[in-house]
Amino acid sequence: MVDPQFKKIIIFGVGLIGGSFALALRKAHAVGEVVGFGRSETTLQQARQLGIIDRIGQDIAVEAGDADLILLATPVGQMAELMARIAPHLGAHTLVTDGGSTKSDVVAAAYAQLGSKAAQFVPAHPIAGAEQSGAAAARADLYVGKKVVLTPLPENTPEAVARVQAAWQACGANIYRLTYAEHDAVFAAVSHLPHLLSFALVHDLAQRDNRDLLLSFAASGFRDFTRIASSSPEMWRDICLANREALLRELQTYIAELNKMSAALAAGDAVQLEQTFRSARELRAGWKEQ
Amino acid sequence: MVDPQFKKIIIFGVGLIGGSFALALRKAHAVGEVVGFGRSETTLQQARQLGIIDRIGQDIAVEAGDADLILLATPVGQMAELMARIAPHLGAHTLVTDGGSTKSDVVAAAYAQLGSKAAQFVPAHPIAGAEQSGAAAARADLYVGKKVVLTPLPENTPEAVARVQAAWQACGANIYRLTYAEHDAVFAAVSHLPHLLSFALVHDLAQRDNRDLLLSFAASGFRDFTRIASSSPEMWRDICLANREALLRELQTYIAELNKMSAALAAGDAVQLEQTFRSARELRAGWKEQ
Repeated sequence: MVDPQFKKIIIFGVGLIGGSFALALRKAHAVGEVVGFGRSETTLQQARQLGIIDRIGQDIAVEAGDADLILLATPVGQMAELMARIAPHLGAHTLVTDGGSTKSDVVAAAYAQLGSKAAQFVPAHPIAGAEQSGAAAARADLYVGKKVVLTPLPENTPEAVARVQAAWQACGANIYRLTYAEHDAVFAAVSHLPHLLSFALVHDLAQRDNRDLLLSFAASGFRDFTRIASSSPEMWRDICLANREALLRELQTYIAELNKMSAALAAGDAVQLEQTFRSARELRAGWKEQ
Repeated sequence: MVDPQFKKIIIFGVGLIGGSFALALRKAHAVGEVVGFGRSETTLQQARQLGIIDRIGQDIAVEAGDADLILLATPVGQMAELMARIAPHLGAHTLVTDGGSTKSDVVAAAYAQLGSKAAQFVPAHPIAGAEQSGAAAARADLYVGKKVVLTPLPENTPEAVARVQAAWQACGANIYRLTYAEHDAVFAAVSHLPHLLSFALVHDLAQRDNRDLLLSFAASGFRDFTRIASSSPEMWRDICLANREALLRELQTYIAELNKMSAALAAGDAVQLEQTFRSARELRAGWKEQ
C-alpha cells in the first residue's frame, strides 16, 4: 500500500462540512490519521463512533506540529479565535484550509492571527449542501462533482496551493480559483442577496394581521421563491455580516432596479416591463446549474 | 341518463384553462354540448380533434342566446373586447365566468361592457398550472383539488353564483370566495410581487459584463428563487399592469422593508438581522401549500 497523501489531518468542527471532508479523504485512501477537535464532546464522540475521526484531540499544542493539513470547518465567526489558538503550534509543513462561505473576513482573520504563517493558509469555499447539518449528516460523497472555490493568498507558494487543491480534489470536487474579493462579490450577487430578499418577503408578510389569509393562497411560485427563507437565521446573520460590504452594494443596486420597475409600473409602461421580463427570462431559461 | 347540468356551454379560448374546463365538465357528465370560439382556427381545429369541443362556433350572435354558460379563458387583456361582443346576445339565463388571474380589471370591464347584464357575470380565478399552455396541454384533471376563487359581484343573484360555483366544483376544484379587491390584494402579495422580484434579480444580473462568471457559481438557492423568472413576459406584463395599484402598494412596502434591512446591515445590527430572519423562517417553516 502506498503512503497516503496526508499522514495526519486535523478537523476543527466535525459536522457536515468537516465530517464529509474526513470521510471523503478516507475513502480515497488519501489520509492516514484523522484527529477531531470541537466544542461539543458529544459530537466528537459521535464522529468517532461513525468512523469520521480516529481520535479526539486533547491539546492542539501537541497535535498541530506534525499535522499535514488542518481544516477549519466551524462557523466563520469562530475562525479568528481558532487561528489564534493554532498559530503558535503550526509545523513548518502544516497547511491550513477552511470551509467558510465568506472569504474576505476569513482572510482578514488569517492575516491578523496567523501573522507570518498566513502563507500556510489556503482559503476554500466548498459549495455543498446546507439543508442538513451535524456529524450524522456527513457523507463521503458530499463533495463529488461539487464546486470548491480556492481563494489563494499572494503569500501562498504554488506548492501549498497545489497540495490543498489536491485534498479537495481527492474529495471529488471540481476546483475553481477566484481572489477573495471576487469570491465575495460573486456570492453576494448569486447567493447572499437572494437569501436576504427571500427572508425579507416572508418577514414582510409575517408582520401582517391577515397573514393566514395571504398564505392560504400562496402557491408554487411562492413556495420556490421562499424556500431559502427557511434557512438558518444564525448562519445567515453571520454570512450577511461577514460579507457586509459586497452585500450592501448588491442590495443598493437591487433597490435601484426595483425603483425603476416601480416607476415603469406607475407609468403603465408596458414596453419597459415586457423588455425587463424578457431579458430576465432569456438569461434564466439559458442557465443550467453546473 | 340524467340531463346534464349545462346543456350548452361556450368556451372562448380553448387552451390549457378553457380546454381543461371543457374536458372536466365532460368527464363529470355535466355538459351537453361544448362550442369553441377563438382567434386561431388551427387551435380550434385541434381542440375539436382532441374532443375538447364539439363544434367551432361561427357566430356568437347565433350561439349565445341558448348557452347556459360562457367561459372567457383568454388573456385578461382581451376580455373587455369579448364582453362587448357577447353582451347584446346573452340569453336571459346565460351565465358568464372567466379564468383570469386578476379580478379588478375584469370586473371593471364587465361593468363597462355588459352594463345591466353584469349581474350574469360571476368572476373566477382558477389557481392552476401555467407552465404549459395550449389545447394539447388541456386535461380533465387540471382542476382536481385545486383552488378556484370566486369574486361575486353585488349584482349577482345567489342562484347565479351557486350555478357557476357548481360548474367549477364539477371540475373537481375547491371553491373560495373573496371580493375582487381582496383577491387582487392577496395575489399581489403572494404571487405578483414574488414574480416581479424574481424577474428584477435576474434582469439586474443580465445587465452585467461578468454575468457568465456570476451564473457559473449560482446554485440551488438561486435556482429556486429565480424559477419564476422564466415565466411568460407577455403574461406577466399584463398581470402587473392589470393589478397595478395593489402591486405598487406591495412593491413600495417591500422596498421599505429592504431599506430597513440595508440600514441594519450597514449598522452591523446582528440582533435585528437575526430577528428578521428568524421571524421569516418560523412563518415559512410552518407553511404548507394547500
